[in-house]
Amino acid sequence: MTSEPLTYKDAGVDIDAVTTALSSVGKMAAATHTDRVLTGLGSFGALFRADFASYREPVLVSSTDGVGTKLLVAHRCSRHDTVGADLVNHCINDILVMGAEPLFFHDYVAAEHFEPGMLEAIVSGFARACGAQGVALIGGETAEMPGVYPPGHFDLAGFIVGVVDKDAVITGERVTAGDVIVALRSNGLHTNGYSLAQRILFDVAGLEHDAQLPGIDGTLGDALLAEHRCYLAPLRPLLTDAALHALVHITGGGFTDNIPRVLPKSLNAVIDRDAWEVPAIFREMARLGPVVRDEMDRTFNMGLGMLLLLAPGDVERVTAQLRDAGEEPLVVGAIEAGDGRVRYTGNDGL
Amino acid sequence: MTSEPLTYKDAGVDIDAVTTALSSVGKMAAATHTDRVLTGLGSFGALFRADFASYREPVLVSSTDGVGTKLLVAHRCSRHDTVGADLVNHCINDILVMGAEPLFFHDYVAAEHFEPGMLEAIVSGFARACGAQGVALIGGETAEMPGVYPPGHFDLAGFIVGVVDKDAVITGERVTAGDVIVALRSNGLHTNGYSLAQRILFDVAGLEHDAQLPGIDGTLGDALLAEHRCYLAPLRPLLTDAALHALVHITGGGFTDNIPRVLPKSLNAVIDRDAWEVPAIFREMARLGPVVRDEMDRTFNMGLGMLLLLAPGDVERVTAQLRDAGEEPLVVGAIEAGDGRVRYTGNDGL
Repeated sequence: MTSEPLTYKDAGVDIDAVTTALSSVGKMAAATHTDRVLTGLGSFGALFRADFASYREPVLVSSTDGVGTKLLVAHRCSRHDTVGADLVNHCINDILVMGAEPLFFHDYVAAEHFEPGMLEAIVSGFARACGAQGVALIGGETAEMPGVYPPGHFDLAGFIVGVVDKDAVITGERVTAGDVIVALRSNGLHTNGYSLAQRILFDVAGLEHDAQLPGIDGTLGDALLAEHRCYLAPLRPLLTDAALHALVHITGGGFTDNIPRVLPKSLNAVIDRDAWEVPAIFREMARLGPVVRDEMDRTFNMGLGMLLLLAPGDVERVTAQLRDAGEEPLVVGAIEAGDGRVRYTGNDGL
Repeated sequence: MTSEPLTYKDAGVDIDAVTTALSSVGKMAAATHTDRVLTGLGSFGALFRADFASYREPVLVSSTDGVGTKLLVAHRCSRHDTVGADLVNHCINDILVMGAEPLFFHDYVAAEHFEPGMLEAIVSGFARACGAQGVALIGGETAEMPGVYPPGHFDLAGFIVGVVDKDAVITGERVTAGDVIVALRSNGLHTNGYSLAQRILFDVAGLEHDAQLPGIDGTLGDALLAEHRCYLAPLRPLLTDAALHALVHITGGGFTDNIPRVLPKSLNAVIDRDAWEVPAIFREMARLGPVVRDEMDRTFNMGLGMLLLLAPGDVERVTAQLRDAGEEPLVVGAIEAGDGRVRYTGNDGL
């Protein structure tokens, strides 16, 4: 026992240092606020005006997510300003596929300890992505937890709330046999499959994060930290289009587990593996693992981050509209009678 | 390099095991759903009807929190079914102090690995506390992150949304000199100060979690895991009472940092340290640290989890109402002219 009085700082928690960082973080968040935000950070709760006068039967759509072990890549590369954007875009996409317009976002950031600049870098990712999509970053929690996290490590969670009219909720109940599956390209792994990716690339293949791989621009670290795309801008004009029967955000579980989330139990989705060229990062992982194609398709997005299930007669019109919005839509499959599963056709190699 | 094909499970992520646990978790969550919840778990987002017809100008009040290093006590005691309730009650209190009625909650649970029953135990805490307060547990994210967390460790975050009429938001702007500070008792440390508490009790004093301390019922672990109280039931009838000028949830930073969150810059709060007996767990920590009283008051709730700032003429009526609701309200201080700080009077010992 010591006779020197203990303080909270002695226990590894420096409230003043975090308070200083939070001041800078507060300014970044405030830059995302619209006149619907009624309070700044620092209050116990965040206030957002629920003026849904333009909706007949407004429904709040909310979602929670994390970044998963992509954080370990950020840690390995000492790059903290992208993972917040990954999380915002992931959350926006998750409520977008239900037809919702995003309103506001909260972040949770916990670390063993925040080195100078680390918290600011993390929150800059949240603020940049929120600002880009018109989402208000209105709250969050920051915690230093010595003992829960190993030195240098941290975790993030994000919470989003959006709104949609009840009639306009996209549930997948309109999906029918003959619908065409159109895909939009992803930007790398997005936020899924990073445990397997790191096992393959760093442990099995023994690569460093600054390695160069064939067909991949920049370093391996750059490729792995590529930011999760946000599909709000190209898809917003289509949300109330009768041709759009469902949207599928390809997250953890790949095509295999995500498509059934919107698929009626009497239908299958058929994905033609020959319909697009799988990007090099996925091909390299399959080769280096090795990992068989079925496992790849159950783990990674394989280059396609969002699927649209469309009425067949409208595919040409909708894909033209998507091309005008800067997308490169690909017809990758169709819906057929079945039992709620994904069936793959084409070459099972890579 | 191995020639045995790798799977996601090889990388430490067993989707099937988590899926099995999530099925049980989904049932617990569904039990908290009202007819305002339009979807079960498993969709990309959760739907909640925004039928605010009884509000003139509805405002959404949202908050995010974690449990902090109280998790390390749960880990040490291998007890996982209480920390979820801590988090729900913490979040409810945080929006309650702004006048809000809680509507729905999301949880984030991440661990190195979920042992059988661990995820179910954690979520049972969320579901039990949500159910008890009429809050719908409508979403969440569960992640196994080998590498981010040390073996056996985990982290939780919670996100709550409530609603209040704009006119009824409690901001503290009605606080005035002469207001009386009435306190409601806490149930132990709630969710704050656990880094210092563990440093003192386990590291400095060398106690085990099953130790018995003078004046404390049960084991030290029991005392430290006592659940964060929810103040919704006793305070709900007072939220639109004109006598209630502000509410202060005593969380991280204690009285010293939390009272100024609602205090106009021209006023001070005076807390009389002789007005209540500080519970044994705090006295023991101050003695064993040792920790000086100012540091205790900046770190712990000291036995008082919620403060009401009341118009002086209404104190008798309001405290009588609180006693009828089963509370033991204590007058612990007053508001005076000042500069936005907390001033302490009375004995600075414990």
